[in-house]
Amino acid sequence: MRQAGRYLPEYRGLRETRDILTICHTPELAVEVTLQPLRRMALDAAILFSDIMVPVAAAGTSLSIEAGAGPVVADPIRSGADVDRLRVLEPEVDAPFVAETIRLLRKELDVPLIGFAGGPFTLASYLVEGHASRSHEHTKALMLGEPAIWERMMRVLGDTVLAHLTAQVESGAQAVQLFDSWAGALAPAQYERSVLPTVRRIFDGVSALGVPAIHFGVGTGELLALMRRAGGDVIGVDHRTPLDVAWSRVGEGAGIQGNLDPAVCLAPWSVVERESVEVLARAGGRAGHVFNLGHGVLPETPVENLQRLVELVHAETAR
Amino acid sequence: MRQAGRYLPEYRGLRETRDILTICHTPELAVEVTLQPLRRMALDAAILFSDIMVPVAAAGTSLSIEAGAGPVVADPIRSGADVDRLRVLEPEVDAPFVAETIRLLRKELDVPLIGFAGGPFTLASYLVEGHASRSHEHTKALMLGEPAIWERMMRVLGDTVLAHLTAQVESGAQAVQLFDSWAGALAPAQYERSVLPTVRRIFDGVSALGVPAIHFGVGTGELLALMRRAGGDVIGVDHRTPLDVAWSRVGEGAGIQGNLDPAVCLAPWSVVERESVEVLARAGGRAGHVFNLGHGVLPETPVENLQRLVELVHAETAR
Repeated sequence: MRQAGRYLPEYRGLRETRDILTICHTPELAVEVTLQPLRRMALDAAILFSDIMVPVAAAGTSLSIEAGAGPVVADPIRSGADVDRLRVLEPEVDAPFVAETIRLLRKELDVPLIGFAGGPFTLASYLVEGHASRSHEHTKALMLGEPAIWERMMRVLGDTVLAHLTAQVESGAQAVQLFDSWAGALAPAQYERSVLPTVRRIFDGVSALGVPAIHFGVGTGELLALMRRAGGDVIGVDHRTPLDVAWSRVGEGAGIQGNLDPAVCLAPWSVVERESVEVLARAGGRAGHVFNLGHGVLPETPVENLQRLVELVHAETAR
Repeated sequence: MRQAGRYLPEYRGLRETRDILTICHTPELAVEVTLQPLRRMALDAAILFSDIMVPVAAAGTSLSIEAGAGPVVADPIRSGADVDRLRVLEPEVDAPFVAETIRLLRKELDVPLIGFAGGPFTLASYLVEGHASRSHEHTKALMLGEPAIWERMMRVLGDTVLAHLTAQVESGAQAVQLFDSWAGALAPAQYERSVLPTVRRIFDGVSALGVPAIHFGVGTGELLALMRRAGGDVIGVDHRTPLDVAWSRVGEGAGIQGNLDPAVCLAPWSVVERESVEVLARAGGRAGHVFNLGHGVLPETPVENLQRLVELVHAETAR
């Protein structure tokens, strides 16, 4: 996530006159932004430029993506009647721009294209809180206090996410990534009871498509074994959990993705180098390690640090 | 932290015409707000009403506490010259209102009074970012990229925090709590190298004062053993780490404080009851468990849920 974005001047230029959803909804622009980081660096994969709220917006929820603040939902979901307003995405009808973007991208790319979607707890949090939240208190109160309403919302969001990912793979995405960014705000028992079944249903559906699937959340140290159980061939972890510790929790059967702290990339190159080498050392050269920056590149990151980082990782892993 | 606050109508009334720093700086008001939750519930201790930025503001940094946004620092610290602007708090000169508040409180209270201070990484993050931050990127870039400047800042902040806590104990606080709220954003190796030594120096100083000390941060599952090494008789954990898991990481020698998810208290009482009983079950009746809500009560919490919660915990632990 955020492989493209505000750290690139060419992206900022494009954003001067267009908001994020406009870019996501316009295949030529989404293609351009997806390709921008690949013109700068020899990345091993492209990541579809999109926003986690795209399928929810396409299925009729009124929302905007505010610069610096993230998604803002006009009428937050707080009741059963509010959940009735949600419907499952029909990708061909509601979001044909996604398939079109992917078809155009595949013509341009000589590296694999990773599709992506937001996870159900994360989508629910934006829908229920109405905006980014540290505590997710209304979401959790609904989840714990109104389990039947929560289940109905999870069903719609799970079906929507699966439909969205399926459409991406059918249009040409060669791998998919599920970002349940805020799942790490949940206690393991809460996650297991109220979120895991929906995530598993999504990954069960994805695994039938025959492409690799990545499963990521922020600050999920205590959830890694549960996330692995929910699904994903590769489990993504952020910098909070040392990579070797994370891998031992995930178990031998899965790959692992991570976990340079994206904030490190704002420091001088010598620091980026030292910290990246440490990540690679903790991966220990094991097959199935995908080097990345956890939640993604931060807006003020110097491009040169990322360019050198890509070279460093390639050089170190080629040894 | 946040035992008093916006969930109480009598606090909101008081805040209508006064900002947080005004309350902290005015002993009669700080006493009143500290006592408000104790009039509502049979709490086992009072927590000094203050803000983590109070000692930094008292030592000359221009800042405000914005409703809903938290601390905003007028001129963020980004360089060695900026660090030169910081100086160590002299409690008797800079913040006599703290000692006065505590002396007044001790006359009113028949439960122990817990003093508190923010931890060095958390204070540094507000000073460097200038406001609340999810990624703490400028703070980490300074910490990793300019270790000598960082060390100078840590020295000033460590001395300030220790002076602030010492003054609180000398005025009558019977325990202290260090809230390094955002330390959980650090990788363990970052914390160990760049923050732990300063935290240890603070706790070494506090332990000479002969009062129990509590050490807390948000999302610190991977840091618990390091935090224990840094100091504190009791290690606080939030809901993300199951209490029994947390205790095993902290080790036998320390008490543990936690860890009901404060968001749970927005759900119906039956949910609060179930989740609280689970926390107590994970504590297993072991001596040294302090029941609390991690980062503290959320503004929209129904008072009645907290009142019943206090009764429940007392009834369950009296068995």
